[in-house]
Amino acid sequence: MSVKKEIGQIARKAREVSHALANLSTAAKNGALQGMADALLQSADVLKRANARDVAAARRAGLTAAMIDRLTLTDKVITGMATSLREVALLPDPVGEVTRMWKRPNGLSVGKMRIPLGVIGIIYESRPNVTSDAAGLCLKAGNAVILRGGSEAIQSNLAIARVIQQSLQTRGIPPEAVQIVPTPSRKAIADLLQLEDFIDVIIPRGGEELIRFVVTHSKIPVIKHYKGVCHVFVDSSADLEMAQTICYNAKVQRPGVCNAMETMLVHRDIAPCFLPPMAEKFTTAGVEIRGCPETRKIIPLAKPARKQDWPAEYLDLILATKVVKDLDEAVQHIIRFGSAHTEAIVTRDYDSAQRFLREVPSSTVLVNASTRFSDGFELGLGAEIGISTTKLHSFGPMGVDDLTTSKFIVYGSGQIRL
Amino acid sequence: MSVKKEIGQIARKAREVSHALANLSTAAKNGALQGMADALLQSADVLKRANARDVAAARRAGLTAAMIDRLTLTDKVITGMATSLREVALLPDPVGEVTRMWKRPNGLSVGKMRIPLGVIGIIYESRPNVTSDAAGLCLKAGNAVILRGGSEAIQSNLAIARVIQQSLQTRGIPPEAVQIVPTPSRKAIADLLQLEDFIDVIIPRGGEELIRFVVTHSKIPVIKHYKGVCHVFVDSSADLEMAQTICYNAKVQRPGVCNAMETMLVHRDIAPCFLPPMAEKFTTAGVEIRGCPETRKIIPLAKPARKQDWPAEYLDLILATKVVKDLDEAVQHIIRFGSAHTEAIVTRDYDSAQRFLREVPSSTVLVNASTRFSDGFELGLGAEIGISTTKLHSFGPMGVDDLTTSKFIVYGSGQIRL
Repeated sequence: MSVKKEIGQIARKAREVSHALANLSTAAKNGALQGMADALLQSADVLKRANARDVAAARRAGLTAAMIDRLTLTDKVITGMATSLREVALLPDPVGEVTRMWKRPNGLSVGKMRIPLGVIGIIYESRPNVTSDAAGLCLKAGNAVILRGGSEAIQSNLAIARVIQQSLQTRGIPPEAVQIVPTPSRKAIADLLQLEDFIDVIIPRGGEELIRFVVTHSKIPVIKHYKGVCHVFVDSSADLEMAQTICYNAKVQRPGVCNAMETMLVHRDIAPCFLPPMAEKFTTAGVEIRGCPETRKIIPLAKPARKQDWPAEYLDLILATKVVKDLDEAVQHIIRFGSAHTEAIVTRDYDSAQRFLREVPSSTVLVNASTRFSDGFELGLGAEIGISTTKLHSFGPMGVDDLTTSKFIVYGSGQIRL
Repeated sequence: MSVKKEIGQIARKAREVSHALANLSTAAKNGALQGMADALLQSADVLKRANARDVAAARRAGLTAAMIDRLTLTDKVITGMATSLREVALLPDPVGEVTRMWKRPNGLSVGKMRIPLGVIGIIYESRPNVTSDAAGLCLKAGNAVILRGGSEAIQSNLAIARVIQQSLQTRGIPPEAVQIVPTPSRKAIADLLQLEDFIDVIIPRGGEELIRFVVTHSKIPVIKHYKGVCHVFVDSSADLEMAQTICYNAKVQRPGVCNAMETMLVHRDIAPCFLPPMAEKFTTAGVEIRGCPETRKIIPLAKPARKQDWPAEYLDLILATKVVKDLDEAVQHIIRFGSAHTEAIVTRDYDSAQRFLREVPSSTVLVNASTRFSDGFELGLGAEIGISTTKLHSFGPMGVDDLTTSKFIVYGSGQIRL
């Protein structure tokens, strides 16, 4: 069978079972999630054996130690996968939730009811735990999911999916709720992206190159996350100690993630007091500062920032730093160079806080808190399927609610249009 | 200047002004909408002169009378455009609305705030009043809009946009809030659809062929509406008089629109009582019935329905009719042949009503009311920018709220991630 035909069958099957999944009771879904968690724990040896083949192939292919580390399924990782599924079971069921209801002058009661999106395609790289995390979230929201992981994790992903499918089947849930694209080629992705009649949304998770490939080739709507160039603006009225703590946390606590600070903007009035002790803390932590000319007058050890530093996502212990004359300049800088991901202000001024919150068009905007809180768990969504930096459908961290849409429901008593 | 370059400049300019538009006060936007309405009325002669050139060209090109009718700007149409703008001015401003707010255990207050989408591209055919309607709705939601109407209406659209732009300028609002693509070629659309850095969403309004072209070529997310194959299911417990009134209204009141009924599904138990008088009413109104074999046993004058009748959008006085054995068969038929647009049930049974509302995955699902209510005004959205039959972002009639997205806002007091 050709790859195209095989993928077509997978997608068609997903669409078919999606209608049954949409009508599963909350108890059936939560039971299935607990069952999946149990099955993964019981199958730990099988999963590790499959994973060992991926790891051996990755070693032969000369993948970096970091990549092999992310690929490896340990008992701890498997326990984590099970725990995540149990946490998803505990979340409220979004399906059927009526979020609003209003009355029309002709007596119609009109409301909005959450329903599943239908069939979700997830295209990701590396970490095999995404396979069970994504499967759990999609199932909770009543969707069928088609997973296409990285070729380097194919044996692990197939094994995880097999365990999940068997577990679903014993509970009378169609195993095609969770399917894996078994072919690792890019061609397989391109084929998948044509199937707009069977798949409702594609969520790519991975490097920018993969995501651009998906956006360029997809006829299906894509929810995507390009990159995180996050800013903290230290206002003139900031509590300087709080500002130091927040900026340090935003840069240093985990520099390799998308919600870490990449550029620090400092109000001119407090730059002379704020920057020297801040720079000392950063230097002690091994952070390289790349400053604008005004920054370098105050902290001469800073390297000069070049044009390409302002839009840079370092994902590393490097920090661009710019002195700005006011909040307007800070907001303009963020709009011009940022990635609409996450920005924070540190301030004691009521008006600055409100203006920053309103005027910064990024997916998460914080006052007096670290950018590192831009995360589904931290914001209280219970789980995270990804972070969207495009505005359609979802903007920012996406939880299980974001895997639903809303239809209009109307209760009438014989009304007709005149 | 090349078409590609010209369109690039339009899009870049739209992105630039979008930030200022996002921060306009409600009063400024409402004043601008009233000003636009006044300006259109004052410029009626200019608009009609420009329109006359389009109409003359359309006559020379041999367009149908119906198409020329839709193209023509009369005083009544211009008054209607002004009235629509004033109605949009009266709607609540969605921008800045905080739809939810919750507290985290660490003391963070987290909420969701509506913000504009940014830059909206609207691609449409024929009716020039869409130019002012769309401009008004996009402005109300704080967006810049790029309009690309049909080539047959280019003079009218340019004239309307010019009047609007002059009116905006006198109020200090950047006239680039509303721009027209002045080139009528398909190539111009294809160029526009590549500009994902400048345009946040594309809304095509028109024939299926146009929409498929847009979906195939767009790197920008598209909100689309393919077609409306709407069903009414007359349940066994239906009030037969109510069922007749609703089915007649859904089919006959305005057969050429997307929310008109195309297929009537009738429960087997009441088909013998319901179908003969219903068929008589339809026949009197000139409706051609195409029935399944069981329908034709009861009403022999019905033509036989062929396979291609079930997914057909007639937009005409033709009705496919099928007798079904129960609600399940009705729902399965709708899922298989429908277009996820609008479906209604007529029933007196509580359980049937609730099951139909929950299980039918269409954008509007009604109990005991005509499908013709699936419309932004009728459902109480105040206005309508289109109807989405895909589930991402919006599903069903779209109002001014659907031209916004929501960002996370976070009020902290120095919190950092541990």
